[in-house]
Amino acid sequence: MEVLNVALGDRSYPICIGSGVLADTGLLLPKFRQPKVAVVTNETLAPIYLEKFSDSLRRVGVEVVEIVLPDGERFKSWQTLNTIFDVLLERQCERSTTLIAFGGGVVGDMTGFAAACYQRGTPFIQIPTTLLSQVDSSVGGKTAINHPLGKNMIGAFYQPKLVLIDTDLLNSLPERELRAGLAEIIKYGLIRDLPFLEWLEQNLAKLLAREPQALQYAIFRSCSNKAEVVAADEHENGERALLNLGHTFGHAIETGMGYGEWLHGEAIAAGTLMAAELSAQLGWIGAEDVLRIESIFQRAGLPVYGPSMPADKYLDLMQHDKKVQNGKLRLVLLQQLGQAVVSDAAPASEIIRAIEKRSNHA
Amino acid sequence: MEVLNVALGDRSYPICIGSGVLADTGLLLPKFRQPKVAVVTNETLAPIYLEKFSDSLRRVGVEVVEIVLPDGERFKSWQTLNTIFDVLLERQCERSTTLIAFGGGVVGDMTGFAAACYQRGTPFIQIPTTLLSQVDSSVGGKTAINHPLGKNMIGAFYQPKLVLIDTDLLNSLPERELRAGLAEIIKYGLIRDLPFLEWLEQNLAKLLAREPQALQYAIFRSCSNKAEVVAADEHENGERALLNLGHTFGHAIETGMGYGEWLHGEAIAAGTLMAAELSAQLGWIGAEDVLRIESIFQRAGLPVYGPSMPADKYLDLMQHDKKVQNGKLRLVLLQQLGQAVVSDAAPASEIIRAIEKRSNHA
Repeated sequence: MEVLNVALGDRSYPICIGSGVLADTGLLLPKFRQPKVAVVTNETLAPIYLEKFSDSLRRVGVEVVEIVLPDGERFKSWQTLNTIFDVLLERQCERSTTLIAFGGGVVGDMTGFAAACYQRGTPFIQIPTTLLSQVDSSVGGKTAINHPLGKNMIGAFYQPKLVLIDTDLLNSLPERELRAGLAEIIKYGLIRDLPFLEWLEQNLAKLLAREPQALQYAIFRSCSNKAEVVAADEHENGERALLNLGHTFGHAIETGMGYGEWLHGEAIAAGTLMAAELSAQLGWIGAEDVLRIESIFQRAGLPVYGPSMPADKYLDLMQHDKKVQNGKLRLVLLQQLGQAVVSDAAPASEIIRAIEKRSNHA
Repeated sequence: MEVLNVALGDRSYPICIGSGVLADTGLLLPKFRQPKVAVVTNETLAPIYLEKFSDSLRRVGVEVVEIVLPDGERFKSWQTLNTIFDVLLERQCERSTTLIAFGGGVVGDMTGFAAACYQRGTPFIQIPTTLLSQVDSSVGGKTAINHPLGKNMIGAFYQPKLVLIDTDLLNSLPERELRAGLAEIIKYGLIRDLPFLEWLEQNLAKLLAREPQALQYAIFRSCSNKAEVVAADEHENGERALLNLGHTFGHAIETGMGYGEWLHGEAIAAGTLMAAELSAQLGWIGAEDVLRIESIFQRAGLPVYGPSMPADKYLDLMQHDKKVQNGKLRLVLLQQLGQAVVSDAAPASEIIRAIEKRSNHA
């Protein structure tokens, strides 16, 4: 097992990564403020994992309230969030009842936001079950739900007390979701860790074959990058925005196509290619860099072109991005491979050109 | 004008109290992070104040988005909250757009919670228009909406950048609401400021007659008490809970009768008498103290008996209180006049006796 620390003063917390860590209730128990927890998961995961996990806690004297949500990004809404609150209140969960998010990014984001709001804040723990959530959304305290006009528009910065990453959970992960997770892993290489990008280029086949050592290393290195960024800029006033490479384009794809049509990682892959094209148009990176980025995403089985939507629709959806400032769109672009930057340097015409170049061929 | 500071490190903010402070845009402007704000108010206040206030900002170059909510506690729901998010997104409000709550406690709590959640946190300013919100809810950063199973169950601790209290706004306040505000003012005397309680006993008639000097002093002294408590215990891990004298009983009244039937201050008055009876039953205060408390609330035109609900229903609703810990109801009681304490010393039978003594006579 590897342990990382997210250094945030009195809100610091550990990330435990390894095979079988979930079975070790000794990692969880010291984090509970009372012997009562609410486990939030979804309909797909519940039949496979919930009973076993709940029983392991009940055996050590913990009361477990189970909350099973419908599965999918389109349920990351106020309505679903309210079903969490309904159960918490009906079952008389208290301010010191710990909420445990057992699932992927949707479960994690919603449970975290529920914990941030329930009685103005209850403790919570992340147990991410997808590669994407293990390397990205479970770490750093961003919680949110979607609004019909924009992804993750309603939420809170609210840190968990513990992130427990059991790599065994990836064995049953559908192929498409494994690939979507690789998009965020590759992202860390592109924005701030060129040696990791090179490692990924060499070890991609091992990751796709789910070799445990390779997966554990890639997860550790990703979380380690994320923990550094979050510790330096928890509330995204600066550096943290770099983690959103490809996300402004990607969110437009997700919102425009209807939540859940494109997986987040797929939208981020296509969005990153748009950001790369734009960076090349500005003369920051070369055409060969764009091809290198295209190549690793393609090898990971990810889309390198966005869906066929008019560029104006892309732009319109992008205007709702949280990085917009005084009406100006700010994008994460690549100064060079391994070094991202937030910039409003690109005129609309160039953004449109990059979108048109990298869409329509899906 | 009097200025108080709420000392919370980098989240500190001023409270400006006085006649006509609203007309001074010089107090507001330096707090805006961009020349765009969203003013949230309600249908009752909008026709009287909104145009004038918005125009004063537009004249100095600020873009104003206006959001008008229905009026009343029963609209303090996630449905109404969503209408705020809808407008913020439609009008492309950004992370640095300031939200201004222009209204009473309902508008303030909802706007504050909307600001806490919109894009994971935007700046906000409180302009409380009722006596109750001027002396209590606008200060201290508690924001929330109600859930059908409990008042203020969903919310956040989120501090404003400024609280602007214009005592002129009280001139048009309905008599019933003025009286409801007095309940929270009297509370400060009871829980931690005996000299203020004595001042109130002597000056109650002036407050009811809305004498400006008396009102300004009572508001200043109340906010000053609240600011001290909040600075010492922002997230209610201890002392801050004392501000909830009468509130556990009071919330049961509000929830049990349906939100909006009883004004918050009215429920708190009756709830405080229940807490006082219970404190007397425990031998902490004398019967003459209970009569003294009854007398000042009666003189303020406030109810000193709760509505006719079975004591079991009271108890059941009280179980949802945020102060419940490991299943145990904790109540704010009076150790003596001017000194409150959080206690789980009262057995259920005594709580029921206090409720029965102080209800049914409404």
